[in-house]
Amino acid sequence: MATLPKFLKTDYFLTAAECNAESELALSTLVRHIIESATEHANRLNVGYSRLAETGIAWVLSRLALEMKRMPRVNERFSLETRVTAIDRHSSDRLFEITDAEGKQLGMARTVWVALDIANRKLADLSMLTELAAIAAPYSPACAPPKRLRMQKQPDTVKDLSVCYSDLDINRHLTTTRYIDFMVSAFDMEWHDRNRISRMDVVFMRETLPGASISIATTALSDREVQLDISQNGEAHVLGLFTHEPRQ
Amino acid sequence: MATLPKFLKTDYFLTAAECNAESELALSTLVRHIIESATEHANRLNVGYSRLAETGIAWVLSRLALEMKRMPRVNERFSLETRVTAIDRHSSDRLFEITDAEGKQLGMARTVWVALDIANRKLADLSMLTELAAIAAPYSPACAPPKRLRMQKQPDTVKDLSVCYSDLDINRHLTTTRYIDFMVSAFDMEWHDRNRISRMDVVFMRETLPGASISIATTALSDREVQLDISQNGEAHVLGLFTHEPRQ
Repeated sequence: MATLPKFLKTDYFLTAAECNAESELALSTLVRHIIESATEHANRLNVGYSRLAETGIAWVLSRLALEMKRMPRVNERFSLETRVTAIDRHSSDRLFEITDAEGKQLGMARTVWVALDIANRKLADLSMLTELAAIAAPYSPACAPPKRLRMQKQPDTVKDLSVCYSDLDINRHLTTTRYIDFMVSAFDMEWHDRNRISRMDVVFMRETLPGASISIATTALSDREVQLDISQNGEAHVLGLFTHEPRQ
Repeated sequence: MATLPKFLKTDYFLTAAECNAESELALSTLVRHIIESATEHANRLNVGYSRLAETGIAWVLSRLALEMKRMPRVNERFSLETRVTAIDRHSSDRLFEITDAEGKQLGMARTVWVALDIANRKLADLSMLTELAAIAAPYSPACAPPKRLRMQKQPDTVKDLSVCYSDLDINRHLTTTRYIDFMVSAFDMEWHDRNRISRMDVVFMRETLPGASISIATTALSDREVQLDISQNGEAHVLGLFTHEPRQ
């Protein structure tokens, strides 16, 4: 058996068509790269979706944290490196490092994945994934773990959203990256021109099905932090926290 | 000077994260690949955005047609090949061929690009682009040219949409691919499960700015064709026509 690849590094080139209004990599696109990169690494380790599906379980992204010193800019090359930093019976942690073409760190991310038993929708046991346990190791420098969030009771603003066909993915529910799009869209272009998101924490709690009417509530926790709660009928689906700072 | 590359072929692998609810390449993602591929080929021919920007003009996608026998599916490799088929004083035509891993044709696309004088927003003269004229040549098999469309006066349904921050691109207006997302979202998942879009015609007429309130009107022209008009205050911005057929 070949040596298990302890990490996976993917190189990217940021085309104009993939940029946001500030000519930078959009947060949701970075999250898509993070998910794809974790998926590809898991496949190479033979602990991907297809292996898990054989025993009726599926990987689900549970929490995410992302800290960026700066975002890649248009026509810039950057890389994303992922490795498994921990695994226990019910969850697995991954660390991601985003670097520029010279290898200088632009930011880091951490994800917590759980395995769900598809039949009973309960947490599955991961102890059989010996390949993951064999390579999981702490890594330094670390990114602070994704925060656990609770829905805010007295939001500043609430906006209604509806889930459209183009928001759906292969799992036939609202795709992960659209939650991030909804969150960044709680602010207008002028806000994004003045501020940058230096850290984002996201907790994924319930899936959102086609045709659902959801709402996004924003609550300023301080002049640097705002919480973004996406819910349906009062039930939390996805909670986010943006830490922001004025652009230089 | 090196020989000008008459065509550009790009290879893709369709990851699960890029699929729609039918586990196929989403229409808007294919359009993004088409735009990126045209942009990259123009850059290699030295007739890209930066060369044109020197004289204060910019490429603008004016019309698009796309005909698909079938869409690439999850975990499938496919290719997109683009070439310039015509150029006159004010516009340039491109043809795209989408093929599977065995080189079998999955579909074709055609685009019409115009050059806009950024200062006076009028059509610019393309005669100085001798590099394009040197390689422009008809190519067979051809895809029927993008249809010219007019706004329908008595739509069946009208839905309001608002332009969010995440809908914007580097040009600080509603990004091309989101118009396609809005159009496919005029139908729900059950409709897409039963039908496939075999041809799409799109005409881009006016840009949509941040914060705009637009509407999308749908008009069934026959049991196989539906027109999708995106407008603001009664002014046409983007008009589309879907030809569809029951899935096998």
